[in-house]
Amino acid sequence: MTDFDPSTHPHRRFNPLLEEHVLVSPHRMKRPWLGQVEAPQTTTLPQYDEKCYLCPGNSRSSGVANDPYEHTYVFENDFAAVLPAPAPAAPVAPHRLLSTEPVHGGCDVLIFHPRHDLTLPQLPHSEVLRVVQEWINLYLTRGRQEGTKYVQIFENKGSIMGCSNPHPHCQTWTLSAIPTIPSKELASLRRYSGGEPSVDGAPSGPKGRPCLLCEYAHLELSQESERRIVAKNDHWLALVPWWATWPFELLVLPYRRHISSIADLTGDEKDSFARILTTVTVKYDNLFQCSFAYSMGIHQRPIPPPENSTVLPDNDEDNIAHLHLHFAPPLLRSASVRKFLVGFELMAEAQRDLTPEQAAARLRACSENHYLDSTRSTA
Amino acid sequence: MTDFDPSTHPHRRFNPLLEEHVLVSPHRMKRPWLGQVEAPQTTTLPQYDEKCYLCPGNSRSSGVANDPYEHTYVFENDFAAVLPAPAPAAPVAPHRLLSTEPVHGGCDVLIFHPRHDLTLPQLPHSEVLRVVQEWINLYLTRGRQEGTKYVQIFENKGSIMGCSNPHPHCQTWTLSAIPTIPSKELASLRRYSGGEPSVDGAPSGPKGRPCLLCEYAHLELSQESERRIVAKNDHWLALVPWWATWPFELLVLPYRRHISSIADLTGDEKDSFARILTTVTVKYDNLFQCSFAYSMGIHQRPIPPPENSTVLPDNDEDNIAHLHLHFAPPLLRSASVRKFLVGFELMAEAQRDLTPEQAAARLRACSENHYLDSTRSTA
Ligand SMILES: [Zn+2]
Ligand SMILES: [Zn+2]
Repeated sequence: MTDFDPSTHPHRRFNPLLEEHVLVSPHRMKRPWLGQVEAPQTTTLPQYDEKCYLCPGNSRSSGVANDPYEHTYVFENDFAAVLPAPAPAAPVAPHRLLSTEPVHGGCDVLIFHPRHDLTLPQLPHSEVLRVVQEWINLYLTRGRQEGTKYVQIFENKGSIMGCSNPHPHCQTWTLSAIPTIPSKELASLRRYSGGEPSVDGAPSGPKGRPCLLCEYAHLELSQESERRIVAKNDHWLALVPWWATWPFELLVLPYRRHISSIADLTGDEKDSFARILTTVTVKYDNLFQCSFAYSMGIHQRPIPPPENSTVLPDNDEDNIAHLHLHFAPPLLRSASVRKFLVGFELMAEAQRDLTPEQAAARLRACSENHYLDSTRSTA
Repeated sequence: MTDFDPSTHPHRRFNPLLEEHVLVSPHRMKRPWLGQVEAPQTTTLPQYDEKCYLCPGNSRSSGVANDPYEHTYVFENDFAAVLPAPAPAAPVAPHRLLSTEPVHGGCDVLIFHPRHDLTLPQLPHSEVLRVVQEWINLYLTRGRQEGTKYVQIFENKGSIMGCSNPHPHCQTWTLSAIPTIPSKELASLRRYSGGEPSVDGAPSGPKGRPCLLCEYAHLELSQESERRIVAKNDHWLALVPWWATWPFELLVLPYRRHISSIADLTGDEKDSFARILTTVTVKYDNLFQCSFAYSMGIHQRPIPPPENSTVLPDNDEDNIAHLHLHFAPPLLRSASVRKFLVGFELMAEAQRDLTPEQAAARLRACSENHYLDSTRSTA
């Protein structure tokens, strides 16, 4: 029998964060593509759009006008998915299969910059740093509100991701419960910390216990040719995880020490964070020469520790969280050929054709200079 | 404080099959819709398309020509996601986080009917019955092949679900492993069977133990006004589950007795099955007067018991499965306004605005006569 070749033979890989498998069918990359491949996107947006409800000074649907802001700008979402406390108590359930859990919280919008046309990869470093600082502010202020159990920061970019306004922005949803996905990840991190350290050179989590993500990051760094790694700087790493389900999915995380949340970043680590965000989003745009659509989410400690607490209470195990970002981009073969998450994937299991190693190689080969930016030198 | 109203106040519901929550934000139904609402779809497809690789007699990309079939037609997918056994053995993993599980199996395509233009809701009852019988044949023959651990039957309908050919068909993927989602469901059914029966009048699963889906079906039937139920006939029930994530998601299942797989259906139960498939797909098309897109999957016993086995071996617990179908349709407000599963949902938790009760009421109100069918009487 022939030897196993991960770029030829169908196989499954395990996602230790969600305890799910992904089916990899690399031999299918050879099938002909019947869909059309379109020319690179060339539409240019105006710097200011009088009809955009996110541009400075414009009115939103609530009637309130945005400030004439000059950098980032935060406001509460006019149609929030959750509402402020108190939530009415739920009625007694007729059966445990029909029980209702009331939830409260808030939804904020964070606009990255006054310019309607400048996405994250096009912003200067100083402006990306301001976005990072706003994330920290939102995490601390929202996370310390009475009854808050979780803060989710996420960005939804591109019309194929259902994003109706191209003005670059992200959202923060604050909830009185820890949502399904981060809750599963925290359980996996907790379980992993009960085992023995198994990767040389990896930092440890709280109480010297092994951290799944510290160990995974160092395992990838130790692999011959670092073949799933896309970018690396002083403190941060971007890689296509072993278990990626989206074609060009990325996991972005600090690797030098165990860091539980963005509130714990030093000045250097923040600077590095802003730089790796630019690196990966520029590579994304360059991959198919288009404004690359994605959903991005920050996973970290559900809420910050209480203010002025120098030592965590004994029952606080949340520092087991390891700060990381997921990028879930749908494009597959070109600016106009996307992956659909349907059929077998909705009913049975995630599936991919392109291997994570092939995806990482493609992204590594992309320039760090934005394809629209003729002013930066091509180093 | 005001009383809790599930159609007004944000809350979470629990999905006992996948052990996940869904965030319900019913107050958001009041927000204005900025997207366009388009006219009903009126494109008519030809009865035969010479360029369609699924029409009778036409050639597929492999060069093989389809038979001049007159009812259903099955062939192996020319670009299968998994390949026949044997699969080469995987190399030793450098670390358990990087381990590879080889997988083998096969992928079949089942064409419902020679007519290029007739979808499931438009087929006469006798032809839907033939489709049901083909599902049973595929489940038995594929499920009894050496090394098979799982058979997944699913249909992907509509171009917004990435389905590139409108000729009505479904697929069967056979695998040497039980995929993530059915595996989670089996674990939930097993756990539930360890408890005490708690719904009056519900049938029991194997060994007289309670079955999650038998009990859930009867719980819904016992609720005042059966308000999540969309359709019911002699043996089958269609309902918007308490924990639905897609706007018009449906769970379709037999409710009179515990049935583990389509191979166990009696003649009457098969007939009833075909009829409820017609009822729900006709209602779907009528909802927005369009060919309603969805992914559908059949969940059941992973593979049939060994042939000629009258008694199951003691270690075979797979009859704990309760046959059911999931319909996951993306449309939200009209034929052209869809739900996107992005942002918060990809990073944190499923979320919906329309409540399952509101969705069920909308579907109940839809006629059982297809909007394009002027020959059937409007009863
Ligand atoms: Zn995560
Ligand atoms: Zn199921």
